[in-house]
Amino acid sequence: MEKIKEKEFKLNKEEDFSNWFSEIIQKSELLDLRYNIKGFNIFKPWAVEIIEKMYDHMQKILKQKNHKPYYFPTLIPEQNFKLESGHLKGFTPEVFWVKEAGTSKLPEKLALRPTSETAFYQMFALWIRSYKDLPFKTYQRANIFRYDTKATRPLLRDREFYWIETHCAHTSKENALNQVKEDMETTEQVLHGIFGLPFIFFERPEWDKFAGAERTFAADVLNPDGKLVQQPSTHLINASFAKAFNITYKDKNQKQQPCYLTCYGPAMSRILASIIIIHGDNKGLRLPWKIAPKQVVIVPIKNSPEILKKVEKIKQELETKDIEVEVDLSEKTTGEKFYFWEMKGVPARIEIGLKEIENKELTIFRRDLNKKEKIKEKDLIKYIQEFSTQYDKNLTKQSDNLFNNRIIDVDSKSELKKAIEQGKIARCNFCSVEKKAMNCAEIIEKEINAEVRGTKFEKETPLKDSKCVICKKPAKEIVYIARAY
Amino acid sequence: MEKIKEKEFKLNKEEDFSNWFSEIIQKSELLDLRYNIKGFNIFKPWAVEIIEKMYDHMQKILKQKNHKPYYFPTLIPEQNFKLESGHLKGFTPEVFWVKEAGTSKLPEKLALRPTSETAFYQMFALWIRSYKDLPFKTYQRANIFRYDTKATRPLLRDREFYWIETHCAHTSKENALNQVKEDMETTEQVLHGIFGLPFIFFERPEWDKFAGAERTFAADVLNPDGKLVQQPSTHLINASFAKAFNITYKDKNQKQQPCYLTCYGPAMSRILASIIIIHGDNKGLRLPWKIAPKQVVIVPIKNSPEILKKVEKIKQELETKDIEVEVDLSEKTTGEKFYFWEMKGVPARIEIGLKEIENKELTIFRRDLNKKEKIKEKDLIKYIQEFSTQYDKNLTKQSDNLFNNRIIDVDSKSELKKAIEQGKIARCNFCSVEKKAMNCAEIIEKEINAEVRGTKFEKETPLKDSKCVICKKPAKEIVYIARAY
Repeated sequence: MEKIKEKEFKLNKEEDFSNWFSEIIQKSELLDLRYNIKGFNIFKPWAVEIIEKMYDHMQKILKQKNHKPYYFPTLIPEQNFKLESGHLKGFTPEVFWVKEAGTSKLPEKLALRPTSETAFYQMFALWIRSYKDLPFKTYQRANIFRYDTKATRPLLRDREFYWIETHCAHTSKENALNQVKEDMETTEQVLHGIFGLPFIFFERPEWDKFAGAERTFAADVLNPDGKLVQQPSTHLINASFAKAFNITYKDKNQKQQPCYLTCYGPAMSRILASIIIIHGDNKGLRLPWKIAPKQVVIVPIKNSPEILKKVEKIKQELETKDIEVEVDLSEKTTGEKFYFWEMKGVPARIEIGLKEIENKELTIFRRDLNKKEKIKEKDLIKYIQEFSTQYDKNLTKQSDNLFNNRIIDVDSKSELKKAIEQGKIARCNFCSVEKKAMNCAEIIEKEINAEVRGTKFEKETPLKDSKCVICKKPAKEIVYIARAY
Repeated sequence: MEKIKEKEFKLNKEEDFSNWFSEIIQKSELLDLRYNIKGFNIFKPWAVEIIEKMYDHMQKILKQKNHKPYYFPTLIPEQNFKLESGHLKGFTPEVFWVKEAGTSKLPEKLALRPTSETAFYQMFALWIRSYKDLPFKTYQRANIFRYDTKATRPLLRDREFYWIETHCAHTSKENALNQVKEDMETTEQVLHGIFGLPFIFFERPEWDKFAGAERTFAADVLNPDGKLVQQPSTHLINASFAKAFNITYKDKNQKQQPCYLTCYGPAMSRILASIIIIHGDNKGLRLPWKIAPKQVVIVPIKNSPEILKKVEKIKQELETKDIEVEVDLSEKTTGEKFYFWEMKGVPARIEIGLKEIENKELTIFRRDLNKKEKIKEKDLIKYIQEFSTQYDKNLTKQSDNLFNNRIIDVDSKSELKKAIEQGKIARCNFCSVEKKAMNCAEIIEKEINAEVRGTKFEKETPLKDSKCVICKKPAKEIVYIARAY
């Protein structure tokens, strides 16, 4: 066992989160961080297989909700960005520009898309004619590029990431806001329902909106270090956008009306970061059942013919139920195999030795509870089918509990400070999330090094006579404050 | 019927192929060609759904053959290209370069990948240690970018295209050549077996190889205008590449040995072009069963409750067998609906009217033969399951026949010229495909405007005393000559 111990994963998620994360993504063979451009990484097979499954789930649900798939070019002409000044201003510092090809100077600067509103919108103007065309709901699976000038971090803050973007047009602002709600439900269905991630959807304060949005809503997930990670955001786009791109429709009375636009952007590579972080432990990954490339690994305790025959039988039995099975016949020791597949986050391990064959039993190690169970061989299928549901429920419950325990009501600056230092999300009364309240937000940023993340979509109203946690003026909102990346 | 006729697809594939192609991709709603960068197009839902299915088939087969999936960054540093001079020289005129991001000049020029050998190979050097790691078989689904300076053409010659690239490392040249053979088999399985495309795999002459390859093999598909389109190619990579990137392994005797590299690049967007061209007719697309986004469309002849009930029943019955069904309840006339779904290439249309209900029959229009059949309603599932196989066989047979009839043996320059002018592939004796025979190839290019496409992989040997079709010197090879894009 000495050899195994040497290789064991020594880092501690709770005490040394940052190193834990960067080690785990390498040791579990998700990413290779040695690519020779800063902020760009290589996704290895284990990561690709997970992300492809994540894409499948997200796309399936978007299709059910009548989004249609498109592929738009990766390059967007600079002129498209120039049409909407807020968007241009917001994205200009982050854009990679192409100005040359071969030995020629191109006639126009081309952006590596940081997001694709300005590509879709010029086509919306051509495609949308009448109220009968609306709602017009699209999506594309795409890579996007952002020259983020803050410190890069694998998966969390890469310069190329793997996402889906939806772009929609509606007849009215009300319908557009319903789309925003639908996007939030999609997030709940996929991120919480399938990936087991707890989050809160906030409406971002006025000063923290997407460049070009009238209203921005974003899901925040909490890391063990007390910092929030922004996951999918959905936006009610500024009316100025529809105007700039001339996106209109003829209503039932043949009158030309402006469209109301929304967009939504779940980034699979960044969501993978949260899956790693929220479910992982000091043994490695713990992957939700529906995105695990292998759901069951079978480890023969010895490579004897009798055992191998049984292994093959069990494998085939599981595969008839569409369960993805790996059999580890490598030269590693049994202990090394256990260690390896726990690290990779496979939900269940089946151990088969002579004792198991003798007793017509199977030994199952379950990664949700990190414990072994013995079952009768004949109960295998029933057990695994129940297990797959229970396993996901356990991961979700464990994560939900941790998350909910870290949201705390505070009533004063000192309480706020204490909560933030403990890595919590503080809920408190606040004067206003409009521009004029920037003062209080700035104080929070400067003195406590935390951010006002926003209000809930279904607004919570402060009790009568409540005061802002900072300036003690009458509170108009209940906001959530935390540290963030 | 007047209204329908007006809209009908007037172009003629045989007589006006070029316009036929550019019309069909727009009318069947595959592409929008109005994007504002030359050579870049928008793929609409019908095209995306087809291509996604194409990707699924190709990836499934690659996985069966133990290729592992990766995502590499879209950008590749210039220094990587500089390591292998042939590759650099070949690709430099085609590369889009990124030199700026935000307002900063980047420390190094970055290429939008035109292909990813130089990205994979630097990692191969780190990942491959021992003969136990070999064969090392990878693939990635990716977009690539080539600033092709010839006239662009949608799908056939775009500047961004959607492909899969495989990169492999082997212990010996023999194993590498076996990989090349496996890639050819994959092409046969997918392009011919699933997509129904006839082609010949040629070894390209010395002067027409991939930049950096020792040997290049490529599948050529023949268009109705008598021009060949190059589809997937597979390459035995130059030894200089493994040397430049220091890709070696330790053999069983602990001796360091060079790896032998291969790559293979099926471009889904370009293969889609061939699917459109080879199977399409003057009514529009005809899609192979396994990549049709909808395999059956049901058209109710009237929107009466009785008919709609039957339509719903038939739909559900088909869907239990995983058949993808569209029901057209739009406001169009029946004739318009027929026209529309024939244009879109849906394999089968089921017509349901009162007569069908009365007789417990269904009327089926089959797009492979463009004719109607009547079947008993109770036989539906059996019929459709047989149909799906028969339909693909018919498409393939029709295409194979056309293709095979256009390969012709020629024995003199005048026969060659005649064959080429008739849009055929000429098979003939040739002095040599090595560099020194450029003369004869140049004569063919200049005087006949055609290209020597190469020899077959399993070489055909000229009869004794055969002479080159051009110079009449002793012939060493049998080559195939045709026009090409």
